[in-house]
Amino acid sequence: MINYPNGKKYNNNHTNTSASNRGMALEDDINATNKYYLETDIANIHKKPTPIQIVHVDYPARNMAKITEAYFKVPSTTDYNGVYRGKAIDFEAKECASKTAFPLASIHPHQIKHLESVLKHGAIAFVIFRFTQYDKTYYISADKVCSYYETSKRKSIPYAWFEENGIIIEYNLVKPVDYLKIIDKLYF
Amino acid sequence: MINYPNGKKYNNNHTNTSASNRGMALEDDINATNKYYLETDIANIHKKPTPIQIVHVDYPARNMAKITEAYFKVPSTTDYNGVYRGKAIDFEAKECASKTAFPLASIHPHQIKHLESVLKHGAIAFVIFRFTQYDKTYYISADKVCSYYETSKRKSIPYAWFEENGIIIEYNLVKPVDYLKIIDKLYF
Repeated sequence: MINYPNGKKYNNNHTNTSASNRGMALEDDINATNKYYLETDIANIHKKPTPIQIVHVDYPARNMAKITEAYFKVPSTTDYNGVYRGKAIDFEAKECASKTAFPLASIHPHQIKHLESVLKHGAIAFVIFRFTQYDKTYYISADKVCSYYETSKRKSIPYAWFEENGIIIEYNLVKPVDYLKIIDKLYF
Repeated sequence: MINYPNGKKYNNNHTNTSASNRGMALEDDINATNKYYLETDIANIHKKPTPIQIVHVDYPARNMAKITEAYFKVPSTTDYNGVYRGKAIDFEAKECASKTAFPLASIHPHQIKHLESVLKHGAIAFVIFRFTQYDKTYYISADKVCSYYETSKRKSIPYAWFEENGIIIEYNLVKPVDYLKIIDKLYF
């Protein structure tokens, strides 16, 4: 029996969870951005499905399968990946409701290990953090996040660290989280 | 309500579905290969979780979430992707029980569109086909599969086409489907 990571409840309706006036959570904003990238042939980047352990499936009709018992699994990779200008793209996205710091417990050790691995193999890897209280969204290179995670004795990353190490992702109506604009500057 | 693609029943136990004497299905062989690549720091390539539409979740205890109603969704991308030597890798895997031809209905139009898109963005993209009756596993470049799909009027790909256009992936005990060996020859 596998619990949902951190015991958090699953929320299938992200529409009302954001502190932002736009009424959209980070995941929705990133999905909208990726959709725009895909449809305008800029990049092919997707959110991976939530990993689920299926225990029981019913077949109420010949062409129908209904899952009646399943559990959330702890993710072993990041949530998003794909390809842009020939490079592998790999990232995680985290929302933070605190004004002062991001709790490191919100990132799974597996995800840090995964980011270190994809970096080593040559992917462009990063984490998008949104501080909902400030409605600010930061791009942070994965090497900075991993290095903080591995070396700091703190249990959280103070907000000032994001201001110092992050790059603000400006809001854009058609590309709410236009992270490729930053990747263009950093890598191309 | 979403049915499982093609109305096929979900089979959580792949162990006994292969015609091969090794008693492992293609998915298990690829997962074992990817695990070897990951643990030996050769590449970071994963199978994506099966996409599922969650309808209802129960919370029988504070730290427990139990999914009690969910349905399989038709996949909009391929099953496998990751990074190898800086390049984005993207592929699909298909088993075929017929001796004469592979039915094109087994590949979703979404997946062909996805392969065409990642090719355009510079990924190394391909399809691994296993003909279980012959216990032969073929590497086929995505452009060949997509081109056949888009231009042929047939509803299946004859086995001879695979012999002509495919590259045999030889079985290896630690890397049962060592597709990177072929990628090394083709791309590096």
